[in-house]
Order: sequence, then structure tokens, then C-alpha cells
Amino acid sequence: MSAAGEHVEQQAQQEQQEQASPETEARVRESFGRQGLMAHLGARITRIAPGRVHIELPGRPEVTQQHGYFHAGATSAIADSAGGYAAFTLFPEGTDVLTVEYKVNLLAPAVGDHLEAVGTVLKAGRTLTVCRLEVFGVRDGRRGLVASGQQTLIRVNPA
Amino acid sequence: MSAAGEHVEQQAQQEQQEQASPETEARVRESFGRQGLMAHLGARITRIAPGRVHIELPGRPEVTQQHGYFHAGATSAIADSAGGYAAFTLFPEGTDVLTVEYKVNLLAPAVGDHLEAVGTVLKAGRTLTVCRLEVFGVRDGRRGLVASGQQTLIRVNPA
Amino acid sequence: MSAAGEHVEQQAQQEQQEQASPETEARVRESFGRQGLMAHLGARITRIAPGRVHIELPGRPEVTQQHGYFHAGATSAIADSAGGYAAFTLFPEGTDVLTVEYKVNLLAPAVGDHLEAVGTVLKAGRTLTVCRLEVFGVRDGRRGLVASGQQTLIRVNPA
Amino acid sequence: MSAAGEHVEQQAQQEQQEQASPETEARVRESFGRQGLMAHLGARITRIAPGRVHIELPGRPEVTQQHGYFHAGATSAIADSAGGYAAFTLFPEGTDVLTVEYKVNLLAPAVGDHLEAVGTVLKAGRTLTVCRLEVFGVRDGRRGLVASGQQTLIRVNPA
Repeated sequence: MSAAGEHVEQQAQQEQQEQASPETEARVRESFGRQGLMAHLGARITRIAPGRVHIELPGRPEVTQQHGYFHAGATSAIADSAGGYAAFTLFPEGTDVLTVEYKVNLLAPAVGDHLEAVGTVLKAGRTLTVCRLEVFGVRDGRRGLVASGQQTLIRVNPA
Repeated sequence: MSAAGEHVEQQAQQEQQEQASPETEARVRESFGRQGLMAHLGARITRIAPGRVHIELPGRPEVTQQHGYFHAGATSAIADSAGGYAAFTLFPEGTDVLTVEYKVNLLAPAVGDHLEAVGTVLKAGRTLTVCRLEVFGVRDGRRGLVASGQQTLIRVNPA
Repeated sequence: MSAAGEHVEQQAQQEQQEQASPETEARVRESFGRQGLMAHLGARITRIAPGRVHIELPGRPEVTQQHGYFHAGATSAIADSAGGYAAFTLFPEGTDVLTVEYKVNLLAPAVGDHLEAVGTVLKAGRTLTVCRLEVFGVRDGRRGLVASGQQTLIRVNPA
Repeated sequence: MSAAGEHVEQQAQQEQQEQASPETEARVRESFGRQGLMAHLGARITRIAPGRVHIELPGRPEVTQQHGYFHAGATSAIADSAGGYAAFTLFPEGTDVLTVEYKVNLLAPAVGDHLEAVGTVLKAGRTLTVCRLEVFGVRDGRRGLVASGQQTLIRVNPA
């Protein structure tokens, strides 16, 4: 709950134009590689910038709900990971990240060739970080917002 | 937003002691069977009462996050389905259910032989229904609450 | 839950540059004038655009929490009204708006000469509308984000 | 994020039967007395138990929305304070509490002679505490649930 929210936010938005350092990218990819669920769903990280991470999920029967749309659980799972790793890019080496909570609105039926989740740091603090979560359905290059949410994360220091 | 929240809630809680009718149970199982994600995760429905549904998810590497705990996305996916079907048990035949939004707190590392998600209707309305979501980690018969949340659902009438 | 989320969103963003029609502005101001809480807190509407409404709340002891910051309840109250009226600007004449639910993160101590809440429609639907909520603390012309959230609203048609 | 969620929860529920110690009650009342917003709204604490606090808000024009119901902002303000002080009862002397975030569903029009907000600790941790929030409309002794939510709080240690 540091008071410097506005500066951190400006900084985060500025940095989103940039690419994460090779060290940060390696840390994120190593951790993501240990998330059994992401591999099982078929999700992959497609962009790692400081304070922003993109994850894509191809459509297939294994990730659907009863009408054949992407299941809210699949939509949320990639949103949660995108936000978690967006926060993680701003954390010091040797620390880890856990999701405290998140809220997501399913704005429209999640359809498309694939989903793209974007997690963006809104406020980075020493203990808690807050991210905006967005998920787009993409078909033939057209993107539509299918889910939007907000997430709180905690930095975990080595024991 | 019908005003009869309190009556409906009392009714729902009373009914939770009971078993759903065979017709309702069949409707829920048929719809659940079409959720590709639930089968892919290995989740199964273990109880269907009016206004309350339980879903279990066995632990295995395919549902983990980076520390080997259940991934928040897997935890949320079964919570979302449990709440959705809890609402669905109270809907008239021929209607369907969609998740509007939900919020979940991950209260403790989600560990255990399996998770058990319980969705319970808090308020049933003509258009919107609100559920409480709880997820327990179960090991050797001991249950610990690992996630708690709240969900808004909408009833979809046939076109 | 209409599928046209993306179009509506683009439209809403485009329209936010514009001013609401005099009829819409009159409808919003008339309804706001009936919110006893807003007058009691000292809040006033400062901008009404299609899909976006701003509300300001001057700092004074009557709106504080125990440390002298703006109380989360005051911060949320103006955020809730800003989002509600942002949705209302897009509703047809003769309908009304109710808040279904909202979630807000308090990102930093809410300090300043006044708060400015901004409600922005993310997705407008026939039944449900989803807004982004932001609250800024303003001091000497400098603005810092102190709260961020998301809100679901329902359109109520005349009986 | 301590792993002992279930024990703490059992303990909290057990303790809710009890009355808070005179020292805890004095700490809560002293802090509540400094919340200018609570006095301005006319809210008062009516029960302080370990892990559970009740706050009442009498109905009057100063707390209404456009239809004469209690404003969601007033409903949320007392829910937020009830949860915050419920957490505070379990914190060690000399620490303080801040709201990280909360989510609330407005389940039914908030009407009644007064509202009663009940904040209950679901999970108490060293850093973060999660509360359930409930608000009842009370008229002629009959209580109806009008709002339900969940809140995350952080313990602030002296500098």
C-alpha cells in the first residue's frame, strides 16, 4: 500500500512499450513451464514486457463449456496467469508471486480461433500488486473483448 | 432484481437438504457432459441438490501451477461450474445459464488429494442468480477451505 | 449478453469524446438530484458524456476514515454513482438503472483536495452493462489513481 | 498466505460466539469514532465479537439513491467498516487495518427502518485477512439479506 501508485503506474505504462530483459524473460518462461495446467490447456506465452504479459489459448473441444464457447474457467485461467506473470516481471530476482484474488466479467460469448489474455500492472507495490485483466477472442485477425477483470497479487519472499 | 430475495434464500437453503429430482439431475449431467473442459481437467459432479452442486477435481500434474499446488485457474473453473449448475437446478426446463461474473479469493495454497468445489445459491431471481463459491482441499478425509468467492449468473431463455 | 461487445465498446469510446445530448444530461441530473446520499456527501457531477460520467467529492472531515483519508465507502459511493450514470446515458428514455454488483481495489491512501470518480462503459448490452470505475485523488492539479474497479449494472424497464 | 487457513477459520467461528475483550472493544470503538463518514451517515457499531462486527444504519433521506432505497454506496460503506473492524479485532495491539479491495452484490432493493451490516472473518493471516460481508434490511423485526460480498484487508504494522 505504498503511496507512490501514480508514479509506478506511469512507469509501468511507459515500460510496456519495451521488451523485458533476457533475464526477466527467462525467469517468466521457466516458471510458466512449471505450470502443468497451462501446458495441459495448450496455452503459451506470446509476449513478455515489463508489467505486461500476453498468453494465447487455441480453441479446441478440451477447453469448452456446454455451448462450445471457451469455458469461463479456461478464460480465467489464462487471464490469471497473464496477470500473475505481468506482476512477476516487476519483482526482484528470487521472489515469487501468488494470486490473492481476482474478479472477472464474461462480457460476451468467448468464441474465436484462439483467445488472447493480456495482464497489465495497474499498481505495483512492495507487498501487493494489482493488475488489469483482459481477454480477447480472435478470429481471422479480428479481436473482440470477451472478458475483463482485476486481480490482486502478493509478492512472496524466499523463506 | 426481484424483491423476494429473502424468501427465495430460505427456500433454497431448505431445499439443499433434499436431493434434486431425477429430471433436474439428468438435465445437469447432460449439460455438464458437454463441458469439454471439465472432462479434460478430470472433474466430476459428486452431488446435485436444489440450489447446491458439488464438483471434485483429483490432483495431478495437469492441473498445477508453478509450485505444484492446484492452479487458481483450475480451482476457479470447478467453482464456476459448481455455481453455474447450482443456479441451473432452480431454472425452468428449456432455459440455460451463463456466468456474468465472479470473484474468488485464494485463501491458502490449494493442496490435497482432490479439490471439492461447492456452489450454493444465495439469491435466485427471474433474470439474475447469485451464488456463493467455496473450494476445499481434501487430504485423508480432512477438508480445508482454499478458496471462497461469489458469482453472478444470468438465465437465458430459448430464442 | 449480446455478442456485439466489441462494436459497442468502440462506439462508446468514440462517443466519450462528445458531450451528451441536452435531454440525456437533463435525465442524469434529475436522477442524480434525487440521490440523497450524493448531496449529503457533498458530491457533484462534473461531466456527462455518452458512456462516461465524472463525479467530484471535496475532502472534509465528514467523508474520512480513521486516518483522515477518504473512507473507502465514500470513494466507492461516488465510483458506483459515476458508473451507474455512465450506463444510464446509453439507456433509452423511460428506463432506469440498478447496480448488480461491483468490485473495487483501494490502490493507495485516498488523499487530496478532492476525489474525482470516472465511470466508463466497457460493454453495453440490452440487459446488462459493465463499467470500469476509476477514482483519482487530486491535489494542486496533480491526479493520482487511488481506486480502480469494475461494475455490473442492469437496465430496469418500466412496469 | 499462511497455510493454516482452516484452523484459523474454525477458531474465528468459535470465537464469534464470545464477546470481544474490553481492550479490543475499546480499540475498535476508538478507531470507529475517528471515522468521520460513519458519524456523518449516522452509523453505529452494535456488536463487537472476535472476528465479527455489526454496524447499523438508520434509514433517512441522507443515505438514499434515486428511488428512495438505501444507496449502494451507503450499504457498502457500512459493510466495508464492519469487515474492517471484524479483522481488526483479531490484530495485535498497535497495528492497524486497511481495505485492499472488496466486491459486493446488491441482491435486492435495500429497504427497511435500518440496515445491519455484518462483517465476519473467513480467513485470518499474518498479512492479509479475508472477510465475508452481509447487509440486511430490517423492518418491524424482519430481516432480509440485501447485499453480500467479500473483502480483503491488510494489517499495517507501526513504522
